[in-house]
Amino acid sequence: MDNAMLAELGRQLRVDAVRAAGAASSGHPTSSMSAADLMAVLITRHLRYDFTRPDDPRGDHLIFSKGHASPLLYAIYKAVGAIDDDELLGFRTDGSRLEGHPTPRLPWVDVATGSLGQGLPIGAGVATAGRRFDRLPYHVWVLCGDSELAEGSMWEAFEYAGHERLGNLTAIVDVNRLGQRGPTRHGWNLGAYARRIAAFGWDVVEIDGHDLAAIDKAYAHASTDPMRPVAILARTSKGRGVAAVEDIEGKHGKALPDVDEAVAELGGRRDLRVRVREPAGEPPPPPRGARPGPPRLPSYEPRSSIATRTAFGEALLALGAARPEVIVLDGEVSDSTRTGLFAKEYPDRFVECYIAEQQMIAAAVGLAVRGWTPYAATFAAFLSRAYDFIRMASISGVDLNLAGSHAGVSIGQDGPSQMGLEDIAALRAIHGSTVLYPCDGNSAVALTAAMAGHPGISYLRTTRDDTEVLYAAEETFEIGGSKTVRGSPDDEVTIVAAGITVHEALRAADKLMGDGIATRVIDAYSIKPIDADTLRVAAAATGRIVTVEDHRPEGGLGEAVQSAVCDADPPVRIARLAVHTMPASATRDQQLRNAGIDADAIAASARRLTST
Amino acid sequence: MDNAMLAELGRQLRVDAVRAAGAASSGHPTSSMSAADLMAVLITRHLRYDFTRPDDPRGDHLIFSKGHASPLLYAIYKAVGAIDDDELLGFRTDGSRLEGHPTPRLPWVDVATGSLGQGLPIGAGVATAGRRFDRLPYHVWVLCGDSELAEGSMWEAFEYAGHERLGNLTAIVDVNRLGQRGPTRHGWNLGAYARRIAAFGWDVVEIDGHDLAAIDKAYAHASTDPMRPVAILARTSKGRGVAAVEDIEGKHGKALPDVDEAVAELGGRRDLRVRVREPAGEPPPPPRGARPGPPRLPSYEPRSSIATRTAFGEALLALGAARPEVIVLDGEVSDSTRTGLFAKEYPDRFVECYIAEQQMIAAAVGLAVRGWTPYAATFAAFLSRAYDFIRMASISGVDLNLAGSHAGVSIGQDGPSQMGLEDIAALRAIHGSTVLYPCDGNSAVALTAAMAGHPGISYLRTTRDDTEVLYAAEETFEIGGSKTVRGSPDDEVTIVAAGITVHEALRAADKLMGDGIATRVIDAYSIKPIDADTLRVAAAATGRIVTVEDHRPEGGLGEAVQSAVCDADPPVRIARLAVHTMPASATRDQQLRNAGIDADAIAASARRLTST
Repeated sequence: MDNAMLAELGRQLRVDAVRAAGAASSGHPTSSMSAADLMAVLITRHLRYDFTRPDDPRGDHLIFSKGHASPLLYAIYKAVGAIDDDELLGFRTDGSRLEGHPTPRLPWVDVATGSLGQGLPIGAGVATAGRRFDRLPYHVWVLCGDSELAEGSMWEAFEYAGHERLGNLTAIVDVNRLGQRGPTRHGWNLGAYARRIAAFGWDVVEIDGHDLAAIDKAYAHASTDPMRPVAILARTSKGRGVAAVEDIEGKHGKALPDVDEAVAELGGRRDLRVRVREPAGEPPPPPRGARPGPPRLPSYEPRSSIATRTAFGEALLALGAARPEVIVLDGEVSDSTRTGLFAKEYPDRFVECYIAEQQMIAAAVGLAVRGWTPYAATFAAFLSRAYDFIRMASISGVDLNLAGSHAGVSIGQDGPSQMGLEDIAALRAIHGSTVLYPCDGNSAVALTAAMAGHPGISYLRTTRDDTEVLYAAEETFEIGGSKTVRGSPDDEVTIVAAGITVHEALRAADKLMGDGIATRVIDAYSIKPIDADTLRVAAAATGRIVTVEDHRPEGGLGEAVQSAVCDADPPVRIARLAVHTMPASATRDQQLRNAGIDADAIAASARRLTST
Repeated sequence: MDNAMLAELGRQLRVDAVRAAGAASSGHPTSSMSAADLMAVLITRHLRYDFTRPDDPRGDHLIFSKGHASPLLYAIYKAVGAIDDDELLGFRTDGSRLEGHPTPRLPWVDVATGSLGQGLPIGAGVATAGRRFDRLPYHVWVLCGDSELAEGSMWEAFEYAGHERLGNLTAIVDVNRLGQRGPTRHGWNLGAYARRIAAFGWDVVEIDGHDLAAIDKAYAHASTDPMRPVAILARTSKGRGVAAVEDIEGKHGKALPDVDEAVAELGGRRDLRVRVREPAGEPPPPPRGARPGPPRLPSYEPRSSIATRTAFGEALLALGAARPEVIVLDGEVSDSTRTGLFAKEYPDRFVECYIAEQQMIAAAVGLAVRGWTPYAATFAAFLSRAYDFIRMASISGVDLNLAGSHAGVSIGQDGPSQMGLEDIAALRAIHGSTVLYPCDGNSAVALTAAMAGHPGISYLRTTRDDTEVLYAAEETFEIGGSKTVRGSPDDEVTIVAAGITVHEALRAADKLMGDGIATRVIDAYSIKPIDADTLRVAAAATGRIVTVEDHRPEGGLGEAVQSAVCDADPPVRIARLAVHTMPASATRDQQLRNAGIDADAIAASARRLTST
């Protein structure tokens, strides 16, 4: 396709973006129009991808970090023959795959975007997969907006990709100078962006984003240095080609005022069909070798002591041997999370993300896109830094394993900044998530293994300090299950605990036994899904439940239990113990006592319930 | 104090940091020792602060972004006479103000730190207060770690402060080359940091962080250009001065192996007393003028229509006139959140943070530290980007008003990336938070006004689309209250709704009336604290509750209601409607129907409850 035809294709992409948004009466045509020439050249001359075989591992990846430019993406899909015009015009309607922002409901979309600043970090993750794990020559092209360069996560990505020398990654920045509200901070000052990005070790090219020859040359350059990512800063006009909107404020995120007139101004409808270049080389053999058999998981002697974070780390190490698809990521705290055990044994499958939790989750998502099984770990408290990335990962539908260590006040002296106290609530609210919280070494091992391959976002909450091993190594732990660790037909009250509080609950049960109160203790290690059946049986049998959690009272174990038994018939009386105060520094036992979640507090609560 | 004495002071700070951590058997002495010389020079020759009057508005601000170096901070407090040696040695013990990471329990600490990458963005907020609002010449000094430069939030801060030309802000980066797990990404490559930070418009100075004359000169330089923030990159040794730990990996976050030996190696205990320079100039008059009287809040005609986001924006505008301490921040979506109304009228009290939600919250925290009343707004979905900042703000104990627009599936076509569906759960779990969700214009106005001055983190959830005005303008809305918008003594079922679902609930009640089912409808506009009394009365009266929310089922309205009535006697039967599916694009009404939270779904649920 010569440059004249390319220009025509650019206009076609604009026309179709305008028509799609017009049909929907919403969407972002102007943000699509600015990048149309950039994409016309990319799909015609540089992208290597087979739209009929989106699962071909050799294919390039095209990620719209500026996901609101979805009309442009869908116009591309039409131009390559992946969708037809009818589908294009169904944009943003109920039941259409062509959502307001791209999601992987479309087979050619790797990840959901639309929360700005995520596509580039995730693209860096995909590029990491290509470089280090798939070892395939595919290229990752990420279309970025200029507004989203204000997001810190973009700079985590620039730092990460520069340091990892991801020459297979190209950021195409559509500098149209207008954000949603108005002008961006730097407008068309490409030099401002260039200085910043170059400082992070990237090769930076500044071009006119409507100069087809310059675009072509920039893309050709993007593949030349295998060890250096390239950023193409393209000066463009938002709403390019339609005078009523071009480079004018207040035209963001709206259909054009007169679609027919705009289409006419752009030269009318066209139906150019693009032949995208095939992926390079022979199809590779299935990338993963045969399974070496089930993992030889570690086990611990009952009554011995080990921290669940350590059991998690040792389980990961065992998974590393048995499951070559397991990759571990950490935010520079691998000595605390215990992923360091894996890192030492399998440095080739460990990704150090330094203290950049957003990039860590994004890299994990990128690896998951390529079929790898990532485990990403940091302190439970610091996963909150990446909450938006976790939220978006659930929209992307990827399978992601997260581990948060140092949960709750039981970490002791470090104080509240280091305590994960909101993590259960935050992770439970993620669609399709799984929230696990083991109380001992053997359950931690079993649940760590159970996460691998489990669909959706799985979260394992671990404890800093050693706890007693309660379970035999042979015990099985199903996601969605629970363990009744103490119980008899005569129980008058049930204590539902998880993690560190299981041990306090058992001590409370001992105390209560001294008072003649038979007590059931349930280890609700699977907080989501929760074992509603067992809880209902206990509710019916004992009529009284005390829940106790090392977490805030909202959205955690107590409310999860309540949701399972609140409609019990006959009704159940529930007391919920949780961390209501702002903790400070203290020993573990002092913290549990100060928060009112230790054995004494549990026993007192149970006594109150049983005495009335 | 001459340089010889300064060197002595540096050693004293190290000694005291080592002793404090030794007494606690934990903490971060090595991370303190690297920065001791930097701090010795600062407090002796440059900081202007009266430790006996921490509320003097003229005082400089010293923020330890590397909060784990708290032993150094507390050693400083001892050196200036603010605490005594006994208190120092109570470090990290139960009841001590000297927590593992600094918190504002100490009167000289502005904000809690310990989640890395937050002190500099917040410092930029304090500097904004000094420059734009307090108009006082105080200087903000932020001690940063090198590890935390991996956090994207630091680059949001560099970009923000450079752009805002905050010459009253100095970042002192303690480049000790060792993170928690081992070497940082760039080690002692000061040039790598210098290139990056300079590219963001900062003046960068590279020094030997143990060369007292060089440190002194760098600080003097820091105050010379009023329009340019300065970053001092100081090459230091972690564990400086004690051979057993100096510049050695694996010594992070631990007391020194032999405290007595280390103290001896550092030359023994000293008791130098530092006279800190007084704040400059005369004490200013009380900065805020007399109140011009209560705000003249907007009001809307019952049965007219307005979006709660717009009512929020118009209420802010009214607050702007009446309350000069109100400052509004936005993440470059002020046309959507409607803070643009305020921005247009009061540009001097509007802070555009561009698409950098972490910096937006940090700036708001910094303003709150100085007594201003910040309202920070973005899409509810994108507040998740700053969740860790909100969490830390609650530890800092600041009063912060947040507004999240575009909540829930009811936004319609934009798709799930733009929908706040986890925000209630996330915000409820924040300690001491308030979560408000008005259903109409008049309640949105009243609650927006009620947030100003309300303690802690207050969150207002707003809706994109217009909704009918239900309440008269005179109606009052207490935090912690609710409104029974329909009800009679014969009610058989109660529907508890909030925001958009109140309108669906009323439509459902109409349908149910057609079936002869009298229905109570409660508008639970205050989700936290929730109006437990009213809910319990309704539970007792009707015995059946349907909750309905445009939010995930976990941690939201339904679980909040359940927590209030689960132990009701006689028991109540509860059905909870929420968004269980992954939404796509569709109209508002289709979204509500698809999610099973529209009037039909509510009525069907109520019928099921009443028929059994």
